[in-house]
Order: sequence, then C-alpha cells, then structure tokens
Amino acid sequence: MPRYALGVEYDGGGFRGWQRLAPPGAADQATVQGVLETALSSVAHAPVSTVCAGRTDAGVHAQCQVVHFDSDARRDPRAWTLGTSTRLPPAVSVVWCRPVADDFNARFSALARRYRYRILNRQVRPALARQWLSWHWRPLDADAMHRAAQALVGEHDFGAFRSAECEATHGRRDLQRIAVSRMGEMVTIDVQANAFLHHMVRNITGSLLEVGAGARAETWIADLLAGGDRRLAGPTAPPTGLVFVGPLYPGCCGLPPDVSLD
Amino acid sequence: MPRYALGVEYDGGGFRGWQRLAPPGAADQATVQGVLETALSSVAHAPVSTVCAGRTDAGVHAQCQVVHFDSDARRDPRAWTLGTSTRLPPAVSVVWCRPVADDFNARFSALARRYRYRILNRQVRPALARQWLSWHWRPLDADAMHRAAQALVGEHDFGAFRSAECEATHGRRDLQRIAVSRMGEMVTIDVQANAFLHHMVRNITGSLLEVGAGARAETWIADLLAGGDRRLAGPTAPPTGLVFVGPLYPGCCGLPPDVSLD
Repeated sequence: MPRYALGVEYDGGGFRGWQRLAPPGAADQATVQGVLETALSSVAHAPVSTVCAGRTDAGVHAQCQVVHFDSDARRDPRAWTLGTSTRLPPAVSVVWCRPVADDFNARFSALARRYRYRILNRQVRPALARQWLSWHWRPLDADAMHRAAQALVGEHDFGAFRSAECEATHGRRDLQRIAVSRMGEMVTIDVQANAFLHHMVRNITGSLLEVGAGARAETWIADLLAGGDRRLAGPTAPPTGLVFVGPLYPGCCGLPPDVSLD
Repeated sequence: MPRYALGVEYDGGGFRGWQRLAPPGAADQATVQGVLETALSSVAHAPVSTVCAGRTDAGVHAQCQVVHFDSDARRDPRAWTLGTSTRLPPAVSVVWCRPVADDFNARFSALARRYRYRILNRQVRPALARQWLSWHWRPLDADAMHRAAQALVGEHDFGAFRSAECEATHGRRDLQRIAVSRMGEMVTIDVQANAFLHHMVRNITGSLLEVGAGARAETWIADLLAGGDRRLAGPTAPPTGLVFVGPLYPGCCGLPPDVSLD
C-alpha cells in the first residue's frame, strides 16, 4: 500500500496531547492524532491510522510534527495537504505531504528531534502571544543557563529529567545540542537529541530556571544528571512554552529541507 | 491631580476594540478600555478614566498601547503595574507605569504611531500563532510590495485608504516610513505615521496584497493615493494580522525607551 509522510502544525493548547485516546474508528476530538486521523479518513474514504515522530503532551505545540500513513486512496500530495487541512479544526493544519518508501517510518527513521522552549522574562505576565510562551518574573541569567546546560550534551542516562509516567525501557539518550539565548525579554532554550524521555525538555527547563534565577549553582545541572534522582531536580516547566520544532531524517528520505539532514 | 502613563499589551482577539462602549462607571468587559478602567478603578478605589494613544479596532492587538489617567490614589508605579495586571483578564496586561507631567497627553503628545501587519504566505492556513497572523495563499512578491509602498511616504491626503466610518476632520497624514519585508514564509509590513485614519493600515495592506500577488502593477498604489477614491482600492485586510506596536513621544516625557524618541 502506498505510504505518505505529512508535516503537521498544531496549537496544542486545546488538546489532551498528540496520542489518540479513543479506540481507532471512534471519534476523538480531544487529541491531535484523533482529529488528524478523522480528517485523513474522510479524504481517503477509508480508515487511516498514523505513526508520529514524537508524541507531544497536553498543551505542547508543534511547528512540524511528522507522521506517516498508508493508503490505497489515489490522491496526490496536494489533495492530501489541502483536503485534510480543510477537514481539520483551526488549531491543526497539514503543511506538506510527500510520498515515501515503504520502509520509511516517521518514528524509527528519525535521527533526531528538536524542541524549543520560550520564556518571557519580565515582571508582568504576557498578554500578546501568551499561548506560546511560558513566563518567569525573576531576572534570568541566560548565559549561566547556557553554560550549565552544556553538561547535558552527549550520551547520558537522563533519569533525573524523566517523569514518573515515562514508559521508555531505559533512560539513555544522546543529547546533541542545547543552547540558551536571550533576545530582549525572551529567553529561548533550543535542544536537539536523538530522542527524548517523557517530560525531559520541561524537566531540564525547570532545573535551568533555578540556575538562571540564581537559586542554584551552574554545576547543579551536572550534579543532577550524575545523581539520576528526579526528586532532586527542579519542577516541570509548564507546557505552553514548548514547541516541537520537528524531527530530522536522512536526506535520502526525500522530505522537505526543514526536516532533512544535509 | 497626579497623572500617570501606562504601557498596555493586549490580545485584541476577544474584544470589540479599544474604545469603551458602556457609559463610564458601567461594567464593560467587551472592550479593552472597559476592562482596563475597571481594573484601574479597583486599584484606585475610585473611578478612573483613560485616554489612549491610538484606538484600535475589534480584533487588533497592541504590543504597547499607551494611556494616561489622573488619580489622587497614592500608589507607586509598581503597584499600578502589578495591581492592575492582577485585576485584568489574561488577554490584557500593564507592562509599565510612569508618573508624567500634567500636560502629558497620551493622544496629543504622541509624535508618531507604529503598526505592524504580518501575513503568513503559504498554501496552507496557519495553525500555530494563527491568532496573530493574517494568511495569504498566493505567492507574494514582498520586494514589489515594498517598492510600491514607497509612494505613500510623505504628507498626503490618505482618503483612498480611509474607511467610510472614519470620523477624522481631514485625511492628511504624514506617513514617515513603510517597509515590506519577507523572512521565510512571513511577510511583514511595518508602517509609521504621525497618526492614522480609520482602517488605514488594513486598507493599505489590502491594496499592497494585490500588488504582491501580481494582480496590480506597482504604480497602482501611487494611482490610488492620487485618486483618493476608497472604492478603487483593495479590500480591507483582516484585523488578526495587525499589531499596534506603539506610539513615540518626545524623550523629555520620561517614558521607557521603546516609546521614546532619542
């Protein structure tokens, strides 16, 4: 059966996360996967199920989630893109569609995933764009956060930054890059890893905020990582500031440049 | 009575515009001025009325609206800022407060106003950040839009870009700067004038979109301006993409740098 990849953008604010909660075939307006599969099935005139690159939690957004699905329905990429978007609620849109090889898998073919966490750092809470931001009123030292975060780069067991509900078989992940930067009142954390544990970005962010506010030393992040005890790390940062920027695939998969390596 | 200036940020999506619709003293949750005056009056324990730099329409946002008000209540700027923000709905926040001279007037002291209009230019509608964007699916030539827009710079009668409901006594305005730029899929129109007519930015944008999409020649904007006939110009662009960046005051008013000249 022909296989397709889709780039999907969503505002996670109104959803209970990516992952479908109702059984396949049943209506599920509460999850992104639910509304997407309903829309794809309507375009295909047959049930369609999807596999995604990275399951996002309730309230977390995606700039480019990638999914794959199989369908015998003869539709060109433009029809999948526009037809599906038309059937989706305003908070979700399909940005592109590409035919892919049978062995492409949105989850297992991805070499890396990128997340961005944005914090408005000022005395007063945000009003404009508040749905895409977190907020921290204590002055943050973004340079200190950046230096502290570099201890996380490399392959480590990230047990200290893993939620109690995490279902992964082990905590080892290869964190390839983490950068904390400030532009005016906006502090941005960009992080890329081969894969992430449940709540990993939000837990890392919560601990980096302690360092940035001066409540903890820069070396605390390295200590937490080495200790592996979630109870010692900072609180989980709220989901509103988190955007799944997207996965990265080998160039040979034939996907658009923003999700392709090379 | 002491006079104060406030910087106010708001998401205009849920409001019927800036201007109070109910009589002073009556509850008015439908307008930004209504909720702001209710919150200020609560902090002051006395009725407070405000004068703003630029009245925005329904659905239009503000990064830094400036208002002034008079109050005998002894509150320091921090109390006005935080106390008022606490009493405002999530879509509005007070970002700063400054004591100002008796002759400062948020409307009449402003030397200029700046607006920004953002258009996501791609085949598929936006999902993420859709509340702050307009959307145009036809490919836009931002350079052509920029060149065409330069005909508007200077002091002119902007009758061609003025709504039928505009209450201004005349249409002459000094448009100091207009720039159209593209970054990836985002086309941004930045415009600064001494003052604006009703719907002026949205009407200019609507006409520039016709040029950008290739439906009209670049010289059309100059022709429209010279002709002065609103019926010949493009449609009014939707409010969601429009942000009132803020007014500009003389440096001697003592306001924060983002609303001060020099």
